[in-house]
Amino acid sequence: MKQFPISIVRFLGKSGATLMLVGLLLARFVAHGQQLISPDHSLALTFSLTSQGAPMYALTYKSKTVLKPSLMGFELVQEKPLNSGFSLLKEDTRSFDETWTPVWADVSHIRNNYNEFTVTLHQADTDRTMLIRFRLFNDGLGFRYEFPEQANLKYFVLKDEDTQFALAGDHKAFWLPGDLDTEEYSTVTSNLSEVRGKMKEAITPNASQHPIGPTALQTPLMMKSKDGLYINIHEAALINYAAMSVVLDDSNFVLTTYLTPDAQGNKGHLQVPTQTPWRTILVSDKAGDILLSHTILNLNDPTKFQDTSWIKPTKFVGVWWEMITGKSTWAYSDTDNVQLGVTDYTKLKPNGRHGANTQNVKRYIDFAAANGIGAVLAEGWNVGWEDWFGHEKDYVFDFLTPYPDFDVKGLHEYAASKGVKLIMHHETSGSTRNYERFMNPAYQFMVDNGYDTVKSGYVGNILPRGEFHYGQWTVNHFLYAVSTAAKYHIMVDAHESVHMTGLSRTFPNLMAEEAARGTEYEAFGGNNPDHTTILPFTRLMGGPMDYTPGIFEMKVEKINPKNHSYVHSTLARQLALYVTMYSPLQMVADLPENYEKHIDAFQFIKDVPVQWDDTKVLEAEPGDYITYARKAKGSDNWFVGRTNDELARESRISFDFLDPGRKYIATIYADAPDANYETNPQAYVIRKLNVTNTSTLTQKCAPGGGYAISVVAQ
Amino acid sequence: MKQFPISIVRFLGKSGATLMLVGLLLARFVAHGQQLISPDHSLALTFSLTSQGAPMYALTYKSKTVLKPSLMGFELVQEKPLNSGFSLLKEDTRSFDETWTPVWADVSHIRNNYNEFTVTLHQADTDRTMLIRFRLFNDGLGFRYEFPEQANLKYFVLKDEDTQFALAGDHKAFWLPGDLDTEEYSTVTSNLSEVRGKMKEAITPNASQHPIGPTALQTPLMMKSKDGLYINIHEAALINYAAMSVVLDDSNFVLTTYLTPDAQGNKGHLQVPTQTPWRTILVSDKAGDILLSHTILNLNDPTKFQDTSWIKPTKFVGVWWEMITGKSTWAYSDTDNVQLGVTDYTKLKPNGRHGANTQNVKRYIDFAAANGIGAVLAEGWNVGWEDWFGHEKDYVFDFLTPYPDFDVKGLHEYAASKGVKLIMHHETSGSTRNYERFMNPAYQFMVDNGYDTVKSGYVGNILPRGEFHYGQWTVNHFLYAVSTAAKYHIMVDAHESVHMTGLSRTFPNLMAEEAARGTEYEAFGGNNPDHTTILPFTRLMGGPMDYTPGIFEMKVEKINPKNHSYVHSTLARQLALYVTMYSPLQMVADLPENYEKHIDAFQFIKDVPVQWDDTKVLEAEPGDYITYARKAKGSDNWFVGRTNDELARESRISFDFLDPGRKYIATIYADAPDANYETNPQAYVIRKLNVTNTSTLTQKCAPGGGYAISVVAQ
Repeated sequence: MKQFPISIVRFLGKSGATLMLVGLLLARFVAHGQQLISPDHSLALTFSLTSQGAPMYALTYKSKTVLKPSLMGFELVQEKPLNSGFSLLKEDTRSFDETWTPVWADVSHIRNNYNEFTVTLHQADTDRTMLIRFRLFNDGLGFRYEFPEQANLKYFVLKDEDTQFALAGDHKAFWLPGDLDTEEYSTVTSNLSEVRGKMKEAITPNASQHPIGPTALQTPLMMKSKDGLYINIHEAALINYAAMSVVLDDSNFVLTTYLTPDAQGNKGHLQVPTQTPWRTILVSDKAGDILLSHTILNLNDPTKFQDTSWIKPTKFVGVWWEMITGKSTWAYSDTDNVQLGVTDYTKLKPNGRHGANTQNVKRYIDFAAANGIGAVLAEGWNVGWEDWFGHEKDYVFDFLTPYPDFDVKGLHEYAASKGVKLIMHHETSGSTRNYERFMNPAYQFMVDNGYDTVKSGYVGNILPRGEFHYGQWTVNHFLYAVSTAAKYHIMVDAHESVHMTGLSRTFPNLMAEEAARGTEYEAFGGNNPDHTTILPFTRLMGGPMDYTPGIFEMKVEKINPKNHSYVHSTLARQLALYVTMYSPLQMVADLPENYEKHIDAFQFIKDVPVQWDDTKVLEAEPGDYITYARKAKGSDNWFVGRTNDELARESRISFDFLDPGRKYIATIYADAPDANYETNPQAYVIRKLNVTNTSTLTQKCAPGGGYAISVVAQ
Repeated sequence: MKQFPISIVRFLGKSGATLMLVGLLLARFVAHGQQLISPDHSLALTFSLTSQGAPMYALTYKSKTVLKPSLMGFELVQEKPLNSGFSLLKEDTRSFDETWTPVWADVSHIRNNYNEFTVTLHQADTDRTMLIRFRLFNDGLGFRYEFPEQANLKYFVLKDEDTQFALAGDHKAFWLPGDLDTEEYSTVTSNLSEVRGKMKEAITPNASQHPIGPTALQTPLMMKSKDGLYINIHEAALINYAAMSVVLDDSNFVLTTYLTPDAQGNKGHLQVPTQTPWRTILVSDKAGDILLSHTILNLNDPTKFQDTSWIKPTKFVGVWWEMITGKSTWAYSDTDNVQLGVTDYTKLKPNGRHGANTQNVKRYIDFAAANGIGAVLAEGWNVGWEDWFGHEKDYVFDFLTPYPDFDVKGLHEYAASKGVKLIMHHETSGSTRNYERFMNPAYQFMVDNGYDTVKSGYVGNILPRGEFHYGQWTVNHFLYAVSTAAKYHIMVDAHESVHMTGLSRTFPNLMAEEAARGTEYEAFGGNNPDHTTILPFTRLMGGPMDYTPGIFEMKVEKINPKNHSYVHSTLARQLALYVTMYSPLQMVADLPENYEKHIDAFQFIKDVPVQWDDTKVLEAEPGDYITYARKAKGSDNWFVGRTNDELARESRISFDFLDPGRKYIATIYADAPDANYETNPQAYVIRKLNVTNTSTLTQKCAPGGGYAISVVAQ
């Protein structure tokens, strides 16, 4: 690691608006680089150039080192690199403080408050200019590279982005293997120095996967330092750029950005004026601050949508878990070779286990209508599922043609008569060109038939062949789908897509994504018991996850005798997930008949909303537990959710978030004393308490357990 | 080369319809393989399996060897090859004789007459089945591989197609370097044994090129044997399969198929039931028979279009040659960095040389209307041309937004008021995803604004990156464009697309393609003088070429003083090309002012039609000369065209194609005695003769010259 050199140090404010900032900066002036301080003074960024003119930054939090001097820049294909030989041409500073109203979020208003520092760097021997814009919030740093219009840099191809994150030590990390095609790994909790030894085991099989290397890790990467700092590294506003992973130098604990390559091995094709996504480092000495951060969202642009009235968060049920568990099938027949436009489906022998048949979907519609659940998903409604997987088929689905036993018009009428919306399913099998060809007619088909939300999927290798799920090409596709859907007033829930980066601010119809191991893995061998104590610190940092909570029947063999997997959670915790796993789109994932067996517990799912005015973190430690309290939108009621790892724990919370002097009735859905995710997951107790803002609660949580509370204002 | 083995020989007709065929076949029975005879007995195909069970075929023409025993089959990715271990499971024979009416062609009716022989081959150790279907016409052979539905072959990836064409000797060949991205090479005439020595020089620079190797050649490959056979090798019905080239074993004169790879180096992704394109070998001892062959067309399926009334052949002028010569520009401004949706074109400084400005287009509309030319093309009408080329830009054009000086509505009204149609221009810069995204709105835009034909272009490397112009992916794109255009009743003229393979029979809105060096190269250094004596034997075998003939001003510097290129043709030959280069879409390519200087010669262009009822070849020798006579559609008038190579030659023709006893006036547009393509290209003489079907003509042709005749019935 290079030393920070002595360099020319100037720091000049530009206007009255930055005057206070300048004052602060001057007060915290250091001798060997430019420094920027966060509005609350907790974070300090230092920027400098090495003696070779390489840009470098470092970050402290309350004087503790978050990032040691870390190099920045790019290597280019067939051109000189943009990572050294720079001189400082200009510096700009700015303060920003604004509160904005999201279309949906975990809170009703979001404060966007940062100090900004922008360096304009000039590379003399090529006469090229690059800017680095830093925004320092109270809970973290975002920075990006910007390439303005200029004579000697117009079109360029990235060979690598060199951005480093030089960590201060061997942190405890919550990590996934870096991969170009899947995020569906179990999170490994280990020190960074242990990554290499655990990598092989961490790389479990997936329908499409390209692990990057023995120390490559995905972002959001959550870490905890030995001196008690919680550090989260990710990116914001990933638009027309390859998604990032990081490669760990496990001798020095330096992370270096690794961009997903394209089919030719290049990392990105850019044209000025342009900029990279933001690289984000969130920091706090309280884990809950990471969970409450809106910095990634704030680093995205405000939406340009004029009308957002059509964007409506909802709960939904669907023909889905019965296929995941193996009880029924997506396919209509058991043949294994079909061709759209060739195969005559009316002549195929039905297999008798096709889930998305009209009668069965009506059953879900009835259940939704009876329980105030807004929408119904039906997967496997369209022809092509017989051989959709594993063949890299190009023309795999047409998104327009239902199976013979799926009555599109009839179901539209039936659902509408019951006041229930329909959720469309567009599995693409990774065949992005085919999806784009059908996109407009498929969305129009949705509009015509009562569907306002699409759950899309990208299982398997990406077509065009050679491209990866997280490369610039496919990232571009994902956002094209979202922006095209918006033209039809369609909301999107994308599965097997790229990690979220706060784009829902700009495209608020991007309701949720999967992009991690969801509940489906409970039927494929089970998720780690601590899975949901980690996801809010990792996957959810970029946006909501369609985790599909709410499984009440933990033994999958009760649904499909051949499947011996079980859900690694108690029933009470399944309720809690509606609070802890924030999403404006929440599935009520189990079969109707399983809810009917526990109708008292199901009451929580009926009651819990999907829109919130406020959010508090009452307890949090990644990998151990999280307890959230959220205030229902337009209501005085609160909902509390607690998720626990594999250990029995005691949760102690205060109700001090409630309005002073107000009386509330809390209905607590908790693990029974003998509950255990492995041996007795369905044991729960429900009790009611009168509470006020001075009340406290001590609640035992079972291994793999948790609790949910509805707090209703009187 | 392996010997034909002695194998079980049976040959059984299946039905009354094939009885005569069977009789013939039995009569020509050979002891060591199955044999099929053409309807006129001139061609004989022999099929057999080697002792290793490898399929093999051979072909004779009037007892002369056309192809020696040639191997067939495939190598697969991660599966056992399909090129040996076969046994003969079944044979089927069939005769076919039908005459059909094309939507447009060089004749009004086309006879499709062949004997067919299909072998069903079984590979015992894998239990896989493959069919080879041979169709033997009087002028050639077509065969393809078929893969029926079966248990052990469903999805497979081609590593290579092994089809060989084992030539009988060191033929004279008219060849282009085999390339994955361009057909725009000059034809080299040499013996096959000389290919390797001439390859390096033959590979001239192109905007996108990937030469295959030192002996790789493109198809259609035209050859002439020492014993006087004309042989043409190509393919028919190229659908969802990689385009073929051939690699020459120049010791044994064996050609082996080389399929264009995809981005991962594979040659094709197939799913049963499926089949390959047809491999075609046309043979005759008369060169003219090759030119008159409709075998490639016949091997394509009849069109499924219900209504073809909207498909209208036409001549057209356009804002094009002035950009090709460098007089004006496609781009509106001289900036070199624009971004759609970012750049404000109204604020750019116009360069003053933008060709597609409203006033200039109106000038072409006026000229078309005054001279009975049906349509006007305007290239460079839409924003994006400032940096369209060479940057592999993804979002390069939107096909919807005109430059500020191009009045879409006004020109629509103006053209309509003059009875002139407009031809749209869609240059894609190779960015196929971007084109597909805009395809539907762009075609609707055409419909809304009076355009019924699109000239598309694919200059530069293909996006998605790593794909080639002639791979399965891009071949699929080209046909997607044609079939999508058909939904809007739009005709297509595709440039830089894959070689034509007779698909205009199935998709008769595919009017023409470029797919070779057209007239534009006359402004880039010039085409070989013999170029147009070869193209009908090569490029045109698969379908019409938008060659853009009709240049009257041969010195390009008269248009753009900086361009010293000259057209390697006399003016008389430019007229002849309207007859010799058959296309239902014929450009009248020169500037209006250049026609006005030679209004007497221009009369031929005004008179010559684009639709024909009959076609005769009066004289033909590839590389030397071709003389066609064509009968205008729905008329008794004939038009004769003669194109000549670089030598002065005497053409001797008979008018015996005319109706007996009928009187005609022939207007002959011939090279003047001192005409020469290099020194005196514009010297022509026009004379009129009374002719009947007993008349003959001896006409001198200048070097690089030719003549055109209109023969008007009295």
